[in-house]
Amino acid sequence: MTSSGRSSYSLREITERFGGEVAGDHSVKVSRVATLETAAAGDIAFLTNERYLAQLKVTRADAVIVGEAARGATRLPRIVCANPYAYFAKVSALFNPERTLRPGIHSSAVVDPGATVARDAEIGPFAVIARNARIGAGCLIGPGSCVGEGATIGAGTRLQANVTIYHGCVIGERALLHSGVVIGADGFGFAQEAGSWIKIPQTGKVIIGDDVEIGANTTVDRGTLDDTVIEEGVKLDNQIQVAHNVRIGAHTVIAAFAGIAGSARIGKRCRLGGGCGIAGHITIADDIVVSPFTLVGKSIAEQGTYTGIYAFEPHSEWRQNAAHLRHLSEMAKRIRALEQKSKQPKRSKP
Amino acid sequence: MTSSGRSSYSLREITERFGGEVAGDHSVKVSRVATLETAAAGDIAFLTNERYLAQLKVTRADAVIVGEAARGATRLPRIVCANPYAYFAKVSALFNPERTLRPGIHSSAVVDPGATVARDAEIGPFAVIARNARIGAGCLIGPGSCVGEGATIGAGTRLQANVTIYHGCVIGERALLHSGVVIGADGFGFAQEAGSWIKIPQTGKVIIGDDVEIGANTTVDRGTLDDTVIEEGVKLDNQIQVAHNVRIGAHTVIAAFAGIAGSARIGKRCRLGGGCGIAGHITIADDIVVSPFTLVGKSIAEQGTYTGIYAFEPHSEWRQNAAHLRHLSEMAKRIRALEQKSKQPKRSKP
Amino acid sequence: MTSSGRSSYSLREITERFGGEVAGDHSVKVSRVATLETAAAGDIAFLTNERYLAQLKVTRADAVIVGEAARGATRLPRIVCANPYAYFAKVSALFNPERTLRPGIHSSAVVDPGATVARDAEIGPFAVIARNARIGAGCLIGPGSCVGEGATIGAGTRLQANVTIYHGCVIGERALLHSGVVIGADGFGFAQEAGSWIKIPQTGKVIIGDDVEIGANTTVDRGTLDDTVIEEGVKLDNQIQVAHNVRIGAHTVIAAFAGIAGSARIGKRCRLGGGCGIAGHITIADDIVVSPFTLVGKSIAEQGTYTGIYAFEPHSEWRQNAAHLRHLSEMAKRIRALEQKSKQPKRSKP
Repeated sequence: MTSSGRSSYSLREITERFGGEVAGDHSVKVSRVATLETAAAGDIAFLTNERYLAQLKVTRADAVIVGEAARGATRLPRIVCANPYAYFAKVSALFNPERTLRPGIHSSAVVDPGATVARDAEIGPFAVIARNARIGAGCLIGPGSCVGEGATIGAGTRLQANVTIYHGCVIGERALLHSGVVIGADGFGFAQEAGSWIKIPQTGKVIIGDDVEIGANTTVDRGTLDDTVIEEGVKLDNQIQVAHNVRIGAHTVIAAFAGIAGSARIGKRCRLGGGCGIAGHITIADDIVVSPFTLVGKSIAEQGTYTGIYAFEPHSEWRQNAAHLRHLSEMAKRIRALEQKSKQPKRSKP
Repeated sequence: MTSSGRSSYSLREITERFGGEVAGDHSVKVSRVATLETAAAGDIAFLTNERYLAQLKVTRADAVIVGEAARGATRLPRIVCANPYAYFAKVSALFNPERTLRPGIHSSAVVDPGATVARDAEIGPFAVIARNARIGAGCLIGPGSCVGEGATIGAGTRLQANVTIYHGCVIGERALLHSGVVIGADGFGFAQEAGSWIKIPQTGKVIIGDDVEIGANTTVDRGTLDDTVIEEGVKLDNQIQVAHNVRIGAHTVIAAFAGIAGSARIGKRCRLGGGCGIAGHITIADDIVVSPFTLVGKSIAEQGTYTGIYAFEPHSEWRQNAAHLRHLSEMAKRIRALEQKSKQPKRSKP
Repeated sequence: MTSSGRSSYSLREITERFGGEVAGDHSVKVSRVATLETAAAGDIAFLTNERYLAQLKVTRADAVIVGEAARGATRLPRIVCANPYAYFAKVSALFNPERTLRPGIHSSAVVDPGATVARDAEIGPFAVIARNARIGAGCLIGPGSCVGEGATIGAGTRLQANVTIYHGCVIGERALLHSGVVIGADGFGFAQEAGSWIKIPQTGKVIIGDDVEIGANTTVDRGTLDDTVIEEGVKLDNQIQVAHNVRIGAHTVIAAFAGIAGSARIGKRCRLGGGCGIAGHITIADDIVVSPFTLVGKSIAEQGTYTGIYAFEPHSEWRQNAAHLRHLSEMAKRIRALEQKSKQPKRSKP
């Protein structure tokens, strides 16, 4: 959780850090990022979409970040760059640094003598670090978070409050795990025998790469025999479920409530919409886009966007239309019959 | 978590508190609410739906709460009122008061010296109250709950066990947050650059109004630049996801698993069904009803109920019918062709 | 979380425990289970599906578990049994025993003097056991887990880290609850009055049978007046929502993100797919299978599999086809009109 030191930077200082070019007065100092609409004095705003050109005319920002195409669209001091949205992200991070760690182990935390904790890590109140766990340099383990036996947390990774990492799991460097995240709970595996279910021990672990962010209350299960793997740069929103033995390729982003069933493989740089589902044991190639609420039941090899959404409508119309869904097969037959009939030569009695 | 003091009240005492009129013996004392079906001696039951009139005849309750229309439908002592269900809620609250707080800070809790805690608040074991946080009068901060730096909890609000409030967030008065709730985790915002994702700092906060209830494991993300806002009287079920910069209007109720994507605006007094989805950046007017499992992809301005559900059927029939969904466009064309053909004058050779 | 003692067993020893028959060298010792594909020396693999017969030929396992049909399909030492998958589960449990408890109450835990804790139970750091709670023999209460007032945890049950059990709830024996599980939060019940919502006290509890497993971040709400009940042997995956007054029959398995609305009754031995929804107040008979993502809006009495999935397709095709969904009713009328027309005698002028 952060503190709010507020420093100001001139446009020249900013471009020295992040590139781009200043047009207009490069000595203008700004200390906050804002939208064109809400910006006030001291703020730098940004234009990422030509739809907002009208707002650019009237913004109260002291400066703006624009793309090459909008270089001439304002007389405000401006930074012209290739990717204004990414530039905005960097400037915002400059103005809103993560809060500085308070190195050390809180007196209330329980750290097993067999655990290894980097000297400059911050271990919060009521954190639990189990035997043989390793906490890397510059880590934050938030209040109430638990790191299980033999688990590893890479350098610079932050666990917010009330995060749970089960035994043996491996988290990469510079990851950010939000509150309520559970990594490494047992995958859902049972064998049926005589009408009841025998638990299959889940003996794999979860391996998470560098620079991964995982949203609040998301769960990633450990593998059955092999591991569940999330590659570097993956970004998971809140309340996602990643089942056992799944592999998610690097730099894939997944929105809230997406569910990835067991042993599915998701490619690199995919984008999965909120509430979508990926069936077990299938493979989604690199760079695939899945729409929200879409259930993908078969492997996808070909690049593109895939969708399966029942579009909403007023309830009374839905009732009328949806009723026919159960007769589509019959409707298709009736159309075929009509077509057959219409092809037959008309017999006309002479 | 409650205690169960059991007091009894006469019908007269109850109507003195909550209004309504006693028909029959107003000295009858009751100490528990129950359904018509399960009621026993000492219980007061309630009739909210004429479907249950048969149960009214045979209930073992000592008294009942009924509407005007059912005044004559029983000879049991009864309270006649305008809204039996709301009346039942009030009587139940009378019989089942929330457990009395035990004011004070548990010896194990970690309260920053810079935090402000009302003298009559109860701070449970292993709670963490960070710097500059403010806990109002009559608050409960349950075991293991964390209140981040500078966050504010309004008077009379209860956080059950293991709730997390991030820095700077503001919770109104008389709110109830259930276990596992996470308020103020980072919104899901990244800018793409050169095939990977740059985090956009989420510098807004979450502001929650008075009399809001939030179910277990629900998550509400902080805004990117502006705030995420939940207005007064909103009721959120379990496992809901509210993304950054969303605004939910007063007295709206939302069932479990609903997902509200970034910057969506939900009106007042809406009812959103379980598992529904609201797309980002759209506006839902006041008093709209969204059916369960329905994805709303466009703004809704006109009052009504909106639905987009694929109705279930036996699997083999679904297989047959669903296959035709992928040919609907073609089917429509074939129907049009048949219609064209049928309009053509039939040429009959003489 | 576990430790990894590694013991080895001969095939003979294994069949003495679990039955089945050794074919080939019964003195071969194995110490790990593995898939045919990844097995190495010292491993026993298993064949559950004839699709993997090719892998059986080349596996590096020292032994395999096979069904009667595959008895002759390999010359490796093998255990022949009726149900290789269940057999594998048992052997894996033998090789991967749950970690031994460390009986006792951690010095940091807060146990109310009025609680009852079995002497051989393990109460982890920062656990909270409230007044009148009862923790049975051989229980594990993980770090940060809370057991509310008067709640009961049956013998041999394990709560992983950060589990919350509300007051009065009853958990059976040998249950396993994963991190983030919340049992007994208030059901979602409100009565409307004058445009706002009055809370209906949720005075029932949750009763969970023996041998139940509940996945990470799953929530089970307490009943309004009666109880919410999960019968013995039920297995719930992660992030499931079970609303108030639901009853789930014995040995039913439910995959992630399933939502069971209030007062629904699910039969015994059902299988509910991930992301499915069961409407409130309906009844699902025993042995029903519900497909993933399917919303069941009406009771189901007849055995079988039920499905309501909008099959996905490339987005551009979906756009074309889905548009016609809103005209299905009209399409049906047009087909009927064509049929009427085609039945009329063709008038041909002589």
